[in-house]
Amino acid sequence: MEKKKNKIKELGEFGLIRHLTSDITMKNPGTLKGPGDDAAVLDYKGKLVVVTSDILMEGIHFNLIYTPMKHLGYKSVVANLSDIYAMNARPRQIIVSLAFSSKLTLEQVENLYAGIRLACETYNVDLAGGDTSTSVTGMAISITAIGEGEKKRIVYRNGAKKNDLICVSGDLGAAYLGLQLLEREKKIFLNNPEVQPELEGYDYLLQRQLKPEPRADIIEYFREQNAKPSAMIDISDGLSSEVMHICRESGTGCKLFADHIPVNSETEKLAAEFNITPLVAALNGGEDYELLFTVSPGEFVKLKDNRNIRAIGHITDSEDGCNLITHDGSSIPLQAQGWNAWHDKD
Amino acid sequence: MEKKKNKIKELGEFGLIRHLTSDITMKNPGTLKGPGDDAAVLDYKGKLVVVTSDILMEGIHFNLIYTPMKHLGYKSVVANLSDIYAMNARPRQIIVSLAFSSKLTLEQVENLYAGIRLACETYNVDLAGGDTSTSVTGMAISITAIGEGEKKRIVYRNGAKKNDLICVSGDLGAAYLGLQLLEREKKIFLNNPEVQPELEGYDYLLQRQLKPEPRADIIEYFREQNAKPSAMIDISDGLSSEVMHICRESGTGCKLFADHIPVNSETEKLAAEFNITPLVAALNGGEDYELLFTVSPGEFVKLKDNRNIRAIGHITDSEDGCNLITHDGSSIPLQAQGWNAWHDKD
Repeated sequence: MEKKKNKIKELGEFGLIRHLTSDITMKNPGTLKGPGDDAAVLDYKGKLVVVTSDILMEGIHFNLIYTPMKHLGYKSVVANLSDIYAMNARPRQIIVSLAFSSKLTLEQVENLYAGIRLACETYNVDLAGGDTSTSVTGMAISITAIGEGEKKRIVYRNGAKKNDLICVSGDLGAAYLGLQLLEREKKIFLNNPEVQPELEGYDYLLQRQLKPEPRADIIEYFREQNAKPSAMIDISDGLSSEVMHICRESGTGCKLFADHIPVNSETEKLAAEFNITPLVAALNGGEDYELLFTVSPGEFVKLKDNRNIRAIGHITDSEDGCNLITHDGSSIPLQAQGWNAWHDKD
Repeated sequence: MEKKKNKIKELGEFGLIRHLTSDITMKNPGTLKGPGDDAAVLDYKGKLVVVTSDILMEGIHFNLIYTPMKHLGYKSVVANLSDIYAMNARPRQIIVSLAFSSKLTLEQVENLYAGIRLACETYNVDLAGGDTSTSVTGMAISITAIGEGEKKRIVYRNGAKKNDLICVSGDLGAAYLGLQLLEREKKIFLNNPEVQPELEGYDYLLQRQLKPEPRADIIEYFREQNAKPSAMIDISDGLSSEVMHICRESGTGCKLFADHIPVNSETEKLAAEFNITPLVAALNGGEDYELLFTVSPGEFVKLKDNRNIRAIGHITDSEDGCNLITHDGSSIPLQAQGWNAWHDKD
């Protein structure tokens, strides 16, 4: 271990970044210059450029106790690609900035990069630049994703219209339950390191928490069907919070039908163990990286055969507010108290 | 103070980012969508897209004891714009991701943003997106800068040719001396908070450390003169380290002439106080954000009247290595032991 640590110091900042990126080849013809200069140079040939960036902090957005480095790298990339897809655009490049304490070994950094690179390969994205530096505190990962859009296809949050259907991809709440499971096992482990974690039977939930996938398939499906949502956002902070973003930006209200919100059977099972209502996990749990979008009834017809897309409600007038219609028909105002780094961990 | 702190919590993540960015208007016609969606949407109309990103960590890249928030915001932006200029491109947008502990007051965050916005206004750059989150450790600032380039104008690090002149803008070593001055006064302050810091007479050095300016003027001058460097890099880690980057990427060696390296008189004066050779500060001190470039003798003729540009050496064969020629004509191999977050603070 000691040797590996010294290895990072030996390499130094520039040596390390070369070590991590030297064998990377650019696959997108538009990536004219990748790592190794002051900036990446990209040719978008007149297409629109879609850019998003975020920063993930140790202890807030991830916990190294139960997050394998490779998964952390993968997920950090996914979170950003998901934002590009949420614009109905295609990610093409990422740039990665990393700060970590000298406690980390070269092997850990290599594993992190292995996850980053796997995500890049899976989604045909070039790792076009980045830097590393040291941190006297925790680890920080900043990723910028750059994608290609077309003016007529880009979808903003603000285009929802009254009577549009509200749709969601996949199922919700699983990543949140996966996190609860990991937190429980962490506590048990911290109390007694001899006890093996009980994670069996919850592969789906763990995968959703540790190795989520962004919905590239949905974006390609829109293209194949020549269909365009009126508004779209990815679900990183919980359905409730995200649908309220769309409604606020669009100047509308909404009705969501509790019975239609898709929840996986594993999510239901573990929610019962934790005494959590699965619907609450779906509404307020975060990190699902599914797409939430609104679509006119005419456009919805083109999409209804896709079993990964579910209509869960519709857009209403702004005055009606944002409401959840429960099983028995009663209406409850939605609240945006989702998974939010500010409220949870402060 | 307590009230201000609570103010941040009250606002929450989304409220805070709206509070900080709601009155910002996009000035570049290419910025189709700024803050408030999953990603920024930019129209580069066929021009090349130049992207760079970095992460600044409290305790490594900045020290809140002597760095006013507004300066910190300004400088964080400048460091990234400088990378865009170093490609001979023009910055157009930035995206800012911020993580900070709950110790910070709303006023401090507002001041940081005031500095970020001042830099944007000064360099005609749109603040096109960003997010904030909390941190359980120190503060982290990640900035992505996006700029516009033209294929025939973009300058990489790898284009230097034998006999090209090596040029530098402005003067070197001042930011490093400014840092030494602040470090000294910090120590005195920590020993005795009653003592007023002695910073008078060193305005230039402090400005270079706390509020550096990127060399937009030099890039515009290249354009006016229809001149193009063969290789370019910005000086963030010290002249020595940067010229070696150019030589390694270009497969060349170089000769720098000690007598020609520009050093300001304030730098010389304070260096004497600290018993530092000014040349060492110029070679190994960092954060000058000047441009280092190589240019063919034919192109140099177009630039020689600009008093902000100084020829300090020339490119040689790779076998000759990278050398500094001193006053008495002796040759010393250059070493890249510049200001480097890895070596200094680890």
